Parts: sequence; structure tokens; C-alpha cells
Amino acid sequence: MKVLLTNDDGIYAPGIYAMAKELSNKPNVEPIVVAPDREQSATGHAITVHKPLRVNEVNKLGEKLNVPFYSVNGTPSDCVKLAIESIVDDKLDLVISGINRGANLGTDVLYSGTVSGAMEAAILGVNSIASSLVDFEYEDYSVAASYTSKVAEMVLKNPERFEKGTLLNINIPGSPAEEIKGIRLTRLGNRQYENLFEKRVDPRGKAYYWMAGKVIEDTSDTETDVSRVRDNYVAVTPVKYDLTDYELYNNLLDWSF
Amino acid sequence: MKVLLTNDDGIYAPGIYAMAKELSNKPNVEPIVVAPDREQSATGHAITVHKPLRVNEVNKLGEKLNVPFYSVNGTPSDCVKLAIESIVDDKLDLVISGINRGANLGTDVLYSGTVSGAMEAAILGVNSIASSLVDFEYEDYSVAASYTSKVAEMVLKNPERFEKGTLLNINIPGSPAEEIKGIRLTRLGNRQYENLFEKRVDPRGKAYYWMAGKVIEDTSDTETDVSRVRDNYVAVTPVKYDLTDYELYNNLLDWSF
Repeated sequence: MKVLLTNDDGIYAPGIYAMAKELSNKPNVEPIVVAPDREQSATGHAITVHKPLRVNEVNKLGEKLNVPFYSVNGTPSDCVKLAIESIVDDKLDLVISGINRGANLGTDVLYSGTVSGAMEAAILGVNSIASSLVDFEYEDYSVAASYTSKVAEMVLKNPERFEKGTLLNINIPGSPAEEIKGIRLTRLGNRQYENLFEKRVDPRGKAYYWMAGKVIEDTSDTETDVSRVRDNYVAVTPVKYDLTDYELYNNLLDWSF
Repeated sequence: MKVLLTNDDGIYAPGIYAMAKELSNKPNVEPIVVAPDREQSATGHAITVHKPLRVNEVNKLGEKLNVPFYSVNGTPSDCVKLAIESIVDDKLDLVISGINRGANLGTDVLYSGTVSGAMEAAILGVNSIASSLVDFEYEDYSVAASYTSKVAEMVLKNPERFEKGTLLNINIPGSPAEEIKGIRLTRLGNRQYENLFEKRVDPRGKAYYWMAGKVIEDTSDTETDVSRVRDNYVAVTPVKYDLTDYELYNNLLDWSF
């Protein structure tokens, strides 16, 4: 099984290395890493059209694991497009984007470079997983890697359950293995930011704004990713890329323009 | 009615000026422009968290129309967040993002800064419209502005048809008014890129890649935005921001993790 790894924290981030290490131990899996050469967080689904892309093999990362690591001066979407079209010769069986440092829950997925890397794969017809370690400060990615690998195996072993181009968004709590209660299927929840900007004045008297804001989580629906992760479950949400609002479409069918 | 305008082509682009001009002629509409200070195409739903944002009033654009124009050194999403939270005091009735130079059809919406500006508004609970002039070379935005304004008025006059935070994605053919056949409600269609990268070698012998590729449009479904625009209709697609794949969610409910 050929599995492409990418991320948005950059190729030197600990999460993608932990994932490559986990997969390099599976006899039936052949991982390959194609990831941004630097951090690309909050790039959304950006693609690079105005500058040429460069690919470099990063031997010092790949040697120990015997896994090829390639860095690209672009976004996660660029990496996946380039890997599928120009770097990997064989057909890919799965793309894993992550493991991201920090949660990608609810509306986060719209801004997430991690999710966009996985979504690019789904658009190109390859099943994919976006994986995130919820706790920003948690340094041990091995439990998250093991859960991601477990879900990955279920996708690889049950292709009939997944149409071409399915994306599962996984969030893993930052807790030791024994404290995690298991895996739950979830819906995207509600996660908003309050008091979004902090206005300051520079030494020359001109105003500037920092994006800031406190996260407000709605946990009234217990089956969302937001709620499940707070209860120390691993949350697995199926995500699609057709943004058509079919409910509103049907409601507007009688509307005369 | 307070209407915020933004875009991803930048505040000096002709499309946003045409839209501001169109709205400035409506007695019941008070437009305000908050847009990126430079082109932000293909930024996806990016937000700016690592540098401070600056706001500047651009008098030479606003004076003639008697419409305030503010530029921001950020993305369309930044502009909408900042406008709603820190620039506009009153409640907004509508956000219009555009008019974009070039189509935003089918999977384009995932990459589109234009759509992300409108989506940001929807997430923050304000109805919104993303508007795009399909033909990249077409210089007359007045017909597109007039159609966008028509749809905007329908949204403003029928709030009961739209729950909080609805987004309509409009694409207008680049044709004279008399050649456009009318407005159609549509679904997002299929638009893929073939032969995505062009590999070249630099003068020092190292490879680099340009994103390129021919657009392949699937027009077998005649009710998609892609098909309708090709038939010279204005396409209006309701778009939502909940990416949960409920069909797959239901199919996986029996799955034991």
C-alpha cells in the first residue's frame, strides 16, 4: 500500500515524522513524504500559481526511517497535487495529512491547511485522512500516530465502504493512551472566536490590529467532534468537498429570478 | 441597508469599483468597501495571524462615489472579520465579495478568495453573495454588477427565505446584456485541471515546476453552475460551510472502531 504523507506545519515538524515512523513499521505499507519546506498554517486551500515550485529530497529526515522525504516551497495542496501528478509514479492508496500540531475541529476545517491537503487528494480521487493532535503543547505524537494508523488501516482494508475520494478528519486528544476512551464517529461542531481583534497603537501613533480572540465551543450537541474530543475520545468526521447547500437549493427552486 | 463589499483581486480592481458604483445609485443601500490592498487570488480561506493588520482609507477611490473605501494588508477573510468586528459600527445586512475577474465554478469555490470572503460573513451570521465575471478578458463589469445587485435585492427583501448566514455564489457570463438568457438556480459542477504541472529546467540544471493545466469541464449535468454559464445564463448556487459528509456519516454508523 502506497501512502503519501503531507502536512501544513512543515517537513521538519514532529507530527509528520511520528506518522512516517509509525507507518515505516508496517510491512504492507510504503510511505512517502512530500511536505512544505516551512510552516503553512492557516493557508486555507491556497495553491501556488505565480511562482515556480521546487522539490528537494531531505536525506537527513528520511535516512533513519528508510522513507523518502521531499520538501516543496508551496502549500499542502501544492504538495499533494505535485506528488500525485509528478513525483509518485504508482497509484496512491491513501493520503494522510498531519499529524497537525493543534485541533482542526468544526469550522476550523475551512481554514486548515492540514484538511486542505487531504481534500486535494479527495478531489483527485484518492482517499485521505487529515489528522490533528488537539493539544498544542503536547509533545508526544506516538499515541496520535497509532490511532491515525488504525483508522488508516480500516480505510485501506475496506475500500467498498468508501467511494473514490473520501476524506476522514481525525482529532486526537493530547493525553496518554490509557486516558483516551476510544474512537467515535462525529459531525463537525461549532467553534467560534470571540473578541476577534486586539487594536493597538504603534510608536508613530498609527493603529494596527492583531487577530486574537477566545475560542467559544458549543458542546450542547454531544455527537460533534468538538464535544467528543473534550470527553477524551478520538473524533473521526467524514468530510466532503461539495459545498452546495442542497436544502437551500430545494427551498429556492420555486423562486423566480 | 448596510452592504459591505470585499474581493480578492484587491481594492484597485475594476470589479469592486463597478459594484460600489452600482450600489451607490440605490437610495436604500449604504455601501462600504473593505478590501485587500493587493491581489489575493487563490489564497483559499487563509487568515492572517502572524503579522498585524493595517487599515487605510483610500480617498481617491471613494470620493467620486461618496462611498468609503478601506484597504487592509490581508486576505478577503481578514477584511470581512475586521470590518464586522472593528470597522463597521452598525449591523451589516449583506456582504458582497467581488466582482471577481474570472470564474468561481464547481470545485473552484474551495480555492477561491472571493468565495472565502463571503463564507466568512456567513460564518459570522451575515448573509452574503460571492460574485464572479466568468470571462477573464471581459472589461465591462456593468452587466455583472447589475445582475449581482438584482440578486442582492432579492436576498435583502426576503430575509425569511434565508436563514442566518446564507451564501449565494453567482457567476455571470462575459457577454453584453442582450445575450444573457437570464438567471438560473444551480448546483456546484465538476471542473478539473488536466496535466497540472509543467516541468522545466533552470539555467543551472535544476528542475522546477509551474502549475498549469487545461480546464476540463463536465457539462453532462445541465443544472450545474458550469453548464448554465456555458449556456450564457447567470448561475446562482447556494453554498454552505458545514463540510460534514452526512451520507458517509450514516453509512459508517455501524462501523466498529
